Amino acid sequence: MNPQSSPLLTDLYQLLMLQSYRDHGMEDTAVFELFVRKLPPGRNFMVAAGLEQVLDFLENLKFSPEELAWLASRFPPAFIAYLEQFRFDGDVHAMAEGTIFFPNQPILQISAALPQAQLVESRVMNLLHFETLIASKAARSVLVAPDKLLVDFGMRRAHGAEAALLAARASYLAGFSGSATVLAGTLYDIPLFGTMAHSYIQAHADETSAFEHFARSHPDNVILLIDTYDTEAAAAKVVTLARKLQADGISIKGVRLDSGDLAAHARQVRQILDAGGLQQATIFASGNLDEYRLHALLSSAAPIDGFGVGTALDISSDSPSLDCAYKLQEYAGKPRRKRSEGKATWPGRKQVYRSYSVDGCLAGDVVALAENDPQAGEALLQPVMRAGRRIAAHAPLQQLRRQTVAGYAHLPHTMATLDTAPAYPVTISAALQALAQQLDAEQVK
Amino acid sequence: MNPQSSPLLTDLYQLLMLQSYRDHGMEDTAVFELFVRKLPPGRNFMVAAGLEQVLDFLENLKFSPEELAWLASRFPPAFIAYLEQFRFDGDVHAMAEGTIFFPNQPILQISAALPQAQLVESRVMNLLHFETLIASKAARSVLVAPDKLLVDFGMRRAHGAEAALLAARASYLAGFSGSATVLAGTLYDIPLFGTMAHSYIQAHADETSAFEHFARSHPDNVILLIDTYDTEAAAAKVVTLARKLQADGISIKGVRLDSGDLAAHARQVRQILDAGGLQQATIFASGNLDEYRLHALLSSAAPIDGFGVGTALDISSDSPSLDCAYKLQEYAGKPRRKRSEGKATWPGRKQVYRSYSVDGCLAGDVVALAENDPQAGEALLQPVMRAGRRIAAHAPLQQLRRQTVAGYAHLPHTMATLDTAPAYPVTISAALQALAQQLDAEQVK
Repeated sequence: MNPQSSPLLTDLYQLLMLQSYRDHGMEDTAVFELFVRKLPPGRNFMVAAGLEQVLDFLENLKFSPEELAWLASRFPPAFIAYLEQFRFDGDVHAMAEGTIFFPNQPILQISAALPQAQLVESRVMNLLHFETLIASKAARSVLVAPDKLLVDFGMRRAHGAEAALLAARASYLAGFSGSATVLAGTLYDIPLFGTMAHSYIQAHADETSAFEHFARSHPDNVILLIDTYDTEAAAAKVVTLARKLQADGISIKGVRLDSGDLAAHARQVRQILDAGGLQQATIFASGNLDEYRLHALLSSAAPIDGFGVGTALDISSDSPSLDCAYKLQEYAGKPRRKRSEGKATWPGRKQVYRSYSVDGCLAGDVVALAENDPQAGEALLQPVMRAGRRIAAHAPLQQLRRQTVAGYAHLPHTMATLDTAPAYPVTISAALQALAQQLDAEQVK
Repeated sequence: MNPQSSPLLTDLYQLLMLQSYRDHGMEDTAVFELFVRKLPPGRNFMVAAGLEQVLDFLENLKFSPEELAWLASRFPPAFIAYLEQFRFDGDVHAMAEGTIFFPNQPILQISAALPQAQLVESRVMNLLHFETLIASKAARSVLVAPDKLLVDFGMRRAHGAEAALLAARASYLAGFSGSATVLAGTLYDIPLFGTMAHSYIQAHADETSAFEHFARSHPDNVILLIDTYDTEAAAAKVVTLARKLQADGISIKGVRLDSGDLAAHARQVRQILDAGGLQQATIFASGNLDEYRLHALLSSAAPIDGFGVGTALDISSDSPSLDCAYKLQEYAGKPRRKRSEGKATWPGRKQVYRSYSVDGCLAGDVVALAENDPQAGEALLQPVMRAGRRIAAHAPLQQLRRQTVAGYAHLPHTMATLDTAPAYPVTISAALQALAQQLDAEQVK
């Protein structure tokens, strides 16, 4: 069984609620929306991602015989019979993957029979939360180092298998050049990058023979890790080796630094390589990097051509979660509002409208009711699933990536840096505010 | 395909190195060790977890025909033929799951032909890192609230499917009472807990009918969420409903609070329930909890009987990664040492010895060479796999959990709190220090 597609990958309370909805005939249409309550500290925007995986999950939602057997010892037969037929046949509106978005804007809206829209909550959040988290983090490295090779190196400290795979996908979507994670390459057609580990060097009696062995095995991809013992001494060995390999038509593509003062080493190594005739060889850096260290290295004009970004990317180290929620906004045609302290939501089925300045920059959004509340601007939520089926085959990841990166050009200058920009203007429409007030007044009774 | 068991869930460089090892006949026995370089800030110890999943992975490691077909377009036929036969037939020593451990102590040691020990690096780290991260985090809540019901609520913001499942497992191993994640219950036989979401309340015309519907659907598990609108007003409704349900033999098991000042609400709700004759009904709290908030709530004597701990647990919010490494320590019988700046390792195949004080408390560890370097104390690394097969069927999770919790009794008082204790004494044996010096001297040449 592949746990990623199991409907039992959910919270127990979803099943308890489902049974009760069934018992009491509560199967009218419900509208749930997924949104983020606030920006992570120091961030200026977020990037929506994960829709493709959510639609896959919804289209294939089905209890297997084994799952039903497990449930049968815990739930009554009539409920098991109901689950046997259970499918998702609702509608979904969503922001396209790669869309820049802000707090309190729904990025996904599910309209379906209440039990269906309820059951999927846990997994829909689990998927959209994580990919959005990673795409939002990755975008910052892309903005800081737009012309550099950026590779996801995070698998080993990603939180499990799916996190590694989806981090590779979400970072590529957000503009990374590729990933080291092979399975992500096979599943999502993401370019793969790889060099060698320190263990490869250590397993050899000396560094030069390690370099030469690698070069002869991979003559088209000779990138050598040079920090195992003494970085500059290793760079000199690379120069010597390059002369030897030249005779066999093998050229050194680059070197990798993974420890120490990367800027200082890069400068010295660049000099050694250049002096040795290896002006074409690139310098790739890795080791505890994040967008802040990339910014510092590039600001110091360190001669580095590419970066492997690992743990900080795959766990979104500065903000390893988003304060997201999936909330019931309408049931049986009536808008609903949660009023829990500090967690009140805007009720009703909504749309997000975006305006642009004359120079094409994001100029302000309006969150409005989806019906009878027209606003100027681009409507960001579009239909993506109808009656449980995708409306269109999903765009290839490469295309989504191009659109995402093109979208960064619409960020105002102040928002496209690591500095905190003034809050982006997001207005709640008058009709939506009035609805919230009206519901509060009704519920006071 | 289940991505969790795919050998392509690895970094590309592992395959590049493998091919080169093959090309150059480097298939002697390598010893790799996995350890953590330093404690997360503010932590006193870590708890090893994830060995079961690592052994599963190693025992079943095999390239499928589809995986080989994908690789065939990128690697030469002879290497593909080699991968077709590829299995893991090495030996593994490890600390038992649930063992308390400290920086620079190997928790896993793999001895296998170099290509085997190399290929598995990425996934072995991915699994052991994450479960150890979560068990180490969960232990803190267990120490703070040893007599309370503690439930993992973190699936929705866990980093993907496997993170949700393994967080449920690792937190249960570390002493949690159970999880809300259904699939974790089915896979690992973990007790499941669940109540209802705010959407359940909101979908009903009024709160009382929501409570009554739930009670009638789940008469044995009536735990009612009372913070959707007004917590104390809802508690009063629960009291009234309890009288009505009594006639039908249904009793209220408890209530759940999920927002606001939990201590203040718990006190007021306790009074309302007690005054209404519901002294037996428990109060369960959730909402952005972690070990620090648990400690604060319990210190204030808030009348709370159980806690749902979500995001902070499943992402290990204060430290979402551990600085762990999987390093080559010996190849072809010769010890190896990485000397990269700030990342030097202790060479050779090692053992960890633990001593206890007369009152049974951890009193100090020695990291020594595994051979010819005898030390007093308990040897923590034990053989768990030989020639690619588990030595013993793994202990049931329940038993591991009992052992783990029993292990906390051996923590010195200062280490069993949320305050930072003085560093635990971990000594490097004289023989190990001498070996490191000797290797450094040799490598200077």
